[in-house]
Amino acid sequence: MKNIILIGSGNVATHLGIALKKRDYNIVQIWSNQINNAKILANKLDCNFTDSIKKLLDADLYILAVKDDVIHQILNKIPDIKIVHTSGGLGMEVFENKFTHYGVLYPLQTFNKNININFTNIPLCIEANNTKFENNLIKLGNQLSDKVVRMSSEQRKQLHIAAVFACNFSNHMFSIADTILSKSDIEFKLLLPLINQTVSKLTDKNPVDVQTGPAKRNDKEVIDSHLNNITDQTTKEIYRLISNSIIKDND
Amino acid sequence: MKNIILIGSGNVATHLGIALKKRDYNIVQIWSNQINNAKILANKLDCNFTDSIKKLLDADLYILAVKDDVIHQILNKIPDIKIVHTSGGLGMEVFENKFTHYGVLYPLQTFNKNININFTNIPLCIEANNTKFENNLIKLGNQLSDKVVRMSSEQRKQLHIAAVFACNFSNHMFSIADTILSKSDIEFKLLLPLINQTVSKLTDKNPVDVQTGPAKRNDKEVIDSHLNNITDQTTKEIYRLISNSIIKDND
Repeated sequence: MKNIILIGSGNVATHLGIALKKRDYNIVQIWSNQINNAKILANKLDCNFTDSIKKLLDADLYILAVKDDVIHQILNKIPDIKIVHTSGGLGMEVFENKFTHYGVLYPLQTFNKNININFTNIPLCIEANNTKFENNLIKLGNQLSDKVVRMSSEQRKQLHIAAVFACNFSNHMFSIADTILSKSDIEFKLLLPLINQTVSKLTDKNPVDVQTGPAKRNDKEVIDSHLNNITDQTTKEIYRLISNSIIKDND
Repeated sequence: MKNIILIGSGNVATHLGIALKKRDYNIVQIWSNQINNAKILANKLDCNFTDSIKKLLDADLYILAVKDDVIHQILNKIPDIKIVHTSGGLGMEVFENKFTHYGVLYPLQTFNKNININFTNIPLCIEANNTKFENNLIKLGNQLSDKVVRMSSEQRKQLHIAAVFACNFSNHMFSIADTILSKSDIEFKLLLPLINQTVSKLTDKNPVDVQTGPAKRNDKEVIDSHLNNITDQTTKEIYRLISNSIIKDND
């Protein structure tokens, strides 16, 4: 599987393309419905580009790195080729009854075209509909990343939900903290050492074992005082709900 | 203020004592109601120790680094000396009408006696009831940390609430992610690169500007699919509430 076509020209396609090229894979062609974006990425990877599904060339592997709804649109137009998608939220079954060799190659990271990233550290979750193709994908994955795992669609769905909590929702906690601090003319950066310390503990401990704070101590006096000092209703509700959830974990 | 007495022998007292001694402050004495703990810290700092408030020696500054409820008990037994507490949640007014020179020296970090920490990186929030004493505390703070800020009790209260969101609650998000993953036999460590990436963005961006995920995109299909795949009721409620809060921020 040395000759690869990338369907997509967004953040995932860009970083995946760069990582593959670095490992001497041959990127044959880029497809995008936005021809300008296809061209930009094709220039980076020194390859062909198109915005027409009908003009797709031959390759050993087609990687679909487009939004979930675009995947559905494209699948009906593609012949039976070796194909994977890169989506965390979408099952492998989207390929069923249309393709002989299909699977998923899901890089667990948020990408931004304009920010360089070391692909070696990114966990790659791999799944395929047959062992031989899966082994080939694992081999390819091992060229790109130090952390390649086999993962079923059901597991990946749970991983995606877990990632929403661990990343999207924790970021919203930072965001609420930022809002509270701005109202009091305190700079958010003051919290960075504490946030870094919180995260660095996860390297060798389970999060539940390093939980701290008033809810962990079941300190009702502090919790009530905090609730009285939060003006925004949604923020108050979040404080109450998460505190109760932490208290429940204590039992 | 070169001669200092530490009231307390816990995590904060230990790290503060070590940091002060490194900067050539003279730790005169450790007080703790647990004499063994007082002795352990006194040995480390090479100083006197006691468990009797009546046997407190003379010093230029008394630092109360004990739990909030212990502070209240101790205050009634101490003569009018130069005094600060190190609590994030407690106002400066606890000292009112009892002392002439009083204030707060609050290190914004979680401490563990057994884990070394670089005190220079820890923000110190300082407040006092008169400018001269406050300036002296700032001078002392600058010896210990690169990040010393003046902060009123009202600001510190909001900072404490913000820290609960940014650290305690984000850690609970990690904890929920961990629970979801264990049920699917996936190791939590897989999420670490994504978590580290999330936090590293905070160095030069506001959290609200780097928010990602289904709620940020207002992707109701994914949100509903996630809700259908979460079995625990509290977890489901947290998912719904935080998603709605993120969606509200989009407006």
